[in-house]
Amino acid sequence: MGEKSELNVGMIGYGFMGKAHSHAFLCANKYFNLPIKLRMKIICGRTEKNVKHMKEKWGWEDYSLDWKEVVKRDDIDLIDIGTPNNIHVPIILEAAKRGKHVLCEKPLGISVSECRKAVAAVKRAKVYHMIWHNYRKAPALSLAKRLINEGRIGKIFHVRAAFLTESLMDPNRPLGWRLEKEKSGSGAHGDICVHIIDAARFLVSEIREVAGMVETFIKERPLPQKPKQKGKVTVDDMSAFLCRFENGATGVFEATKFARGRKSHNRIEVNGAKGSFIWCSEDMNVLEFYSEADPKHIRGFRKILATEKTHPYIKGYWPPGHIIGYEHTFINALVDFAHAYAEGKMPSPNLMDGLQNQIVLEAVLKSAEMKKWVKVGRLK
Amino acid sequence: MGEKSELNVGMIGYGFMGKAHSHAFLCANKYFNLPIKLRMKIICGRTEKNVKHMKEKWGWEDYSLDWKEVVKRDDIDLIDIGTPNNIHVPIILEAAKRGKHVLCEKPLGISVSECRKAVAAVKRAKVYHMIWHNYRKAPALSLAKRLINEGRIGKIFHVRAAFLTESLMDPNRPLGWRLEKEKSGSGAHGDICVHIIDAARFLVSEIREVAGMVETFIKERPLPQKPKQKGKVTVDDMSAFLCRFENGATGVFEATKFARGRKSHNRIEVNGAKGSFIWCSEDMNVLEFYSEADPKHIRGFRKILATEKTHPYIKGYWPPGHIIGYEHTFINALVDFAHAYAEGKMPSPNLMDGLQNQIVLEAVLKSAEMKKWVKVGRLK
Amino acid sequence: MGEKSELNVGMIGYGFMGKAHSHAFLCANKYFNLPIKLRMKIICGRTEKNVKHMKEKWGWEDYSLDWKEVVKRDDIDLIDIGTPNNIHVPIILEAAKRGKHVLCEKPLGISVSECRKAVAAVKRAKVYHMIWHNYRKAPALSLAKRLINEGRIGKIFHVRAAFLTESLMDPNRPLGWRLEKEKSGSGAHGDICVHIIDAARFLVSEIREVAGMVETFIKERPLPQKPKQKGKVTVDDMSAFLCRFENGATGVFEATKFARGRKSHNRIEVNGAKGSFIWCSEDMNVLEFYSEADPKHIRGFRKILATEKTHPYIKGYWPPGHIIGYEHTFINALVDFAHAYAEGKMPSPNLMDGLQNQIVLEAVLKSAEMKKWVKVGRLK
Amino acid sequence: MGEKSELNVGMIGYGFMGKAHSHAFLCANKYFNLPIKLRMKIICGRTEKNVKHMKEKWGWEDYSLDWKEVVKRDDIDLIDIGTPNNIHVPIILEAAKRGKHVLCEKPLGISVSECRKAVAAVKRAKVYHMIWHNYRKAPALSLAKRLINEGRIGKIFHVRAAFLTESLMDPNRPLGWRLEKEKSGSGAHGDICVHIIDAARFLVSEIREVAGMVETFIKERPLPQKPKQKGKVTVDDMSAFLCRFENGATGVFEATKFARGRKSHNRIEVNGAKGSFIWCSEDMNVLEFYSEADPKHIRGFRKILATEKTHPYIKGYWPPGHIIGYEHTFINALVDFAHAYAEGKMPSPNLMDGLQNQIVLEAVLKSAEMKKWVKVGRLK
Repeated sequence: MGEKSELNVGMIGYGFMGKAHSHAFLCANKYFNLPIKLRMKIICGRTEKNVKHMKEKWGWEDYSLDWKEVVKRDDIDLIDIGTPNNIHVPIILEAAKRGKHVLCEKPLGISVSECRKAVAAVKRAKVYHMIWHNYRKAPALSLAKRLINEGRIGKIFHVRAAFLTESLMDPNRPLGWRLEKEKSGSGAHGDICVHIIDAARFLVSEIREVAGMVETFIKERPLPQKPKQKGKVTVDDMSAFLCRFENGATGVFEATKFARGRKSHNRIEVNGAKGSFIWCSEDMNVLEFYSEADPKHIRGFRKILATEKTHPYIKGYWPPGHIIGYEHTFINALVDFAHAYAEGKMPSPNLMDGLQNQIVLEAVLKSAEMKKWVKVGRLK
Repeated sequence: MGEKSELNVGMIGYGFMGKAHSHAFLCANKYFNLPIKLRMKIICGRTEKNVKHMKEKWGWEDYSLDWKEVVKRDDIDLIDIGTPNNIHVPIILEAAKRGKHVLCEKPLGISVSECRKAVAAVKRAKVYHMIWHNYRKAPALSLAKRLINEGRIGKIFHVRAAFLTESLMDPNRPLGWRLEKEKSGSGAHGDICVHIIDAARFLVSEIREVAGMVETFIKERPLPQKPKQKGKVTVDDMSAFLCRFENGATGVFEATKFARGRKSHNRIEVNGAKGSFIWCSEDMNVLEFYSEADPKHIRGFRKILATEKTHPYIKGYWPPGHIIGYEHTFINALVDFAHAYAEGKMPSPNLMDGLQNQIVLEAVLKSAEMKKWVKVGRLK
Repeated sequence: MGEKSELNVGMIGYGFMGKAHSHAFLCANKYFNLPIKLRMKIICGRTEKNVKHMKEKWGWEDYSLDWKEVVKRDDIDLIDIGTPNNIHVPIILEAAKRGKHVLCEKPLGISVSECRKAVAAVKRAKVYHMIWHNYRKAPALSLAKRLINEGRIGKIFHVRAAFLTESLMDPNRPLGWRLEKEKSGSGAHGDICVHIIDAARFLVSEIREVAGMVETFIKERPLPQKPKQKGKVTVDDMSAFLCRFENGATGVFEATKFARGRKSHNRIEVNGAKGSFIWCSEDMNVLEFYSEADPKHIRGFRKILATEKTHPYIKGYWPPGHIIGYEHTFINALVDFAHAYAEGKMPSPNLMDGLQNQIVLEAVLKSAEMKKWVKVGRLK
Repeated sequence: MGEKSELNVGMIGYGFMGKAHSHAFLCANKYFNLPIKLRMKIICGRTEKNVKHMKEKWGWEDYSLDWKEVVKRDDIDLIDIGTPNNIHVPIILEAAKRGKHVLCEKPLGISVSECRKAVAAVKRAKVYHMIWHNYRKAPALSLAKRLINEGRIGKIFHVRAAFLTESLMDPNRPLGWRLEKEKSGSGAHGDICVHIIDAARFLVSEIREVAGMVETFIKERPLPQKPKQKGKVTVDDMSAFLCRFENGATGVFEATKFARGRKSHNRIEVNGAKGSFIWCSEDMNVLEFYSEADPKHIRGFRKILATEKTHPYIKGYWPPGHIIGYEHTFINALVDFAHAYAEGKMPSPNLMDGLQNQIVLEAVLKSAEMKKWVKVGRLK
């Protein structure tokens, strides 16, 4: 089991995810009784003003402008990564080399080959690692997994999943790092499709083969620094794929940032022989569940408000009917990490999930390019 | 049991309800196998052009402009009433006198005292009678009753019901008969509140005492014939009441025609010790049901789409998932009437329900006037 | 324009569709004022007892056991087809030869090549023809089309559609004609996927290329006549495909009869630059619509209950908030047919739509077999 | 304006509300930039083990077992009260006497007369005060208020509100302080009905007269310390009332802890001449809004997911579509408090709202007892 009762955390990145992670580090042990302490030691980023601001806001003890320094510090036990995608693996490699445990945002990297290196490195270093697929930790989706384990869904026939936003529909939205292939790896595909891929792998089984497509609707956008000039968008605005799972189920997946009216609509439906369920992040405290075990005349999709003590993670929060928010999924992830560490188990999902998700992502892109079905490799 | 295998129907009134009834008479024996035939013999109304048109449209064999003649005809077995409210009881009295069976639209009449006469008359005449509280016959609401009978709701604590429309919000809407007390008895109260009163009595128990209120928001409206002149609205635009049921449950009722955005929103929720359900006419094929008998972690309101063979009345219609419409509730009512007649049982709901509903309506009005709680009398 | 003021109808087939069509023929001119009369002349099927029963139930004047005779009759103007799929085209060919107008259930046939013959025949014969894609005629889906035409959706980026049922999940369900390729052409694909293909073509544009998959989960089923013996299922239980539309939109389609809890869930979502909408047959009176034209802080998917006079087809029915049912979509289709005939216009959708739908169906099957993208041919 | 840039907080009470308040004090200035600092100086409660635990969990600097001491401390600027109801006013009186600002949980007290004293005391002391009616601070409900202010609802005709839970249905639930009249004042009435009263007053206007009822379904419960003995429940399990608002609107209110399946279902619907809205705490990020200003054919209740920058409070949180949870309403309340203090304005809602809510609560109880309508007094 993990040797320490307190881990000093160095967090690299301070944007959207830096804020979500900071709240989680700050509050996880308040809502829950963690078996170890996670100490907010240092936050790191490139722009001093901003990093300093975040340090003070959220109570990090120190800040740095150079991730390499942070990774080198002897007093840091755990590196938490929330940077642009192309820096994930470089940081992991350095961190692992120094025996630091790793928490990494999704997607793991920008290519399968670099992700393989990351996994090899953490394995070699025998460190604990986790990938922040936070939606697995929503109580209602975690409950779905429990229903599967209890046999309430039965043999699974179908998965249909979509992650829909409208976040790229404005043509004036500048060409940030997420729209540059060398920094992001891919667009909506790696940013949001990876969430539904991960959810399906978590709930159902590995994916065996895929037929995919991608599309870029707006091909040029203003440059962030020179808004009158335009640069080329080198990633997809949407991706979709059909698949077959190893257990024989079929899958239909779609991710897009061009779905007018959809804000952050991450939805998955699973149909099995005995039951079905639907979950959507925009109403993330609810699981809809249909059971063939019910008497015939009272069958229907029930809306389970997963806010009761009997539901995953809820003991840490509020009485029934008081919903939790998006950022609590990060707290829940940390709770799982802390317990896994304390019990000497590898956290889940971890960098191997990150790699397998990347393998699927890449297979879809290859299929889209070749316009035919492609087998999905398996992590050994 | 009813003596005849065919009943000749005379229908008085040809408006909204005349159309719904006509469709029911025409199609009931097509969707279902009725034990008796209901022959569309004659339709009656005051305006020849319109009555004749309806006769031809819907296939009535004959028409008349004088209901008294219709009631007198020897070849008529069954009088179906869809006239303004103040004519219901006069027709019933004449029909009963001549031994005609009676179907009557709701509300039964415009006062308890005249409704008592109607009930006395049909009892004396020993005819079959039914009141068209069609919503009882929606498969999903009928299913709710079955759930109660099966003990799935348990001891009932609460009823909350509302019938909401926006149909009187336009101040230019003319002063039709529904807005004149001497023709209608009351406004939203007798027109739509009576539906939720009936549903609650059907599902729960009799009402013991009430505290009510009524309100008229638009006090004058254009006269139908002289739109530049205004007349006084003599009925309520809304009514509401609290109540206690004989079984100890509490009730909260509201009916209004001033609820912007609500079209014909007839909703009832019942909470019991073991379960709860919700039904709403705008989504009338669905019953939401919560069961405490479910395992703790999978409790939730289930949306039962009451379109399967196992559900009330559905055998006559379509495969699962194919919804029926508003007018089918009238077909279902006729199906029940025909079976009751053939089996020699009094149909349900019948004129005694109409009277008891009227007793509740009147108690609410009295309470509203006296500004205190009022006991509800019981039909002996 | 159509020459006659009354068309004598001969209907072939008396099952689920026979009942839906009968109700439509019986009631279309009651709810609406049709410009022509559709006379229920003769119903035709193979089993005398059943045909006769349907004739009497629904008021057909005559019946026949031989469709060829019906088609030959001089007093028949219009042939309505609701038989197994493999008989559609043969009947059409004979009917067209004799100058009869044609209404045909979907799918048009079992192969593109025979469907081409059907279209050639009706063109040659210059008869009026319609294919019963009834869902186009649901008021709420028809309203969606109006919103597109009004420019409220804008350039369309995405279509996602699914038709989900659980109707084949019981392994004891016998091997009926729908499961035999030579009678049905395909399984869920031709039976229900065709509906969502048609809806997308109706709403968006033609489909340019597809990548598809099919799956058969239960490969053998009891023979209808010898339930102890099993026969091979020769069609799909599910199909799915990705596509690109000619206007540049992407599409994700899925049809299955193995979605536990889904009854007849025919759902389509369309996302455009200015707005999005969602429609689902299980709640068919509702259209969900999101408009970017709304002020920013009050944007959201609105649930339009398409039951008001301003909505398509509703003038024939009931006041606001009173929903119509599944079978009314058939009435609406007949209304459109009658008006098109009277005005001398080709009804829509018609056999050319049936053929184009078949071209898409077949392209998907070919793609599934070849495991690569396939171009979709275009009807000239 | 408030004189200090930092307020030292002493919080009395450490239960459900103590946790919610602690999170708010800890995080308000992290999500938002508060104009003043709120320092978590001391937490106070009666049971040392528990208070100490909460102090350490949530980072209070100190703890105490005696609220009188806390109130006396010179280094405390602000007293935050989350104790049983009967201690609220005594603490306020002491706090005000010493010039401390006050935050108080709802309901303000257990009687109108003591609440009047509290209000008099804070007025005399000229301190800032707020009552924690946190639901006003849910972005979606705050948006509703904005819609009213913008004239999008128009003249209001109806309010219907219900706060439904099932939290007292277990007869083995012991007789805690909330079930003892001398400690709580009333039951569901003061605990949850007060929330919907406050919401209606916030959104609509003051209440002019009421007709109420209360009911206690389980009249004896196990004593907390001696579970084999039973004690008398001296408060209501449910309350309901009809009312008229000063602006002429009607109201229907119900609060109960006996609604099977309802977890913390705090729902309010408001109907006006131009629009309507519905809000429910179980789905608290959503506001349903209907606007008569929309073109006729696209009117419907829109589901506004109030998670965009344009919505109240959201700038502090996450990108569109990422929901916030129950406890964020407390953060939002603190944000409002801090700004009011810094700008020298009285926060809203404050103790005068608490008193007016109490006046309504008491009028309802009086009406229930007298079984007639009762006028509601007005705070001068």
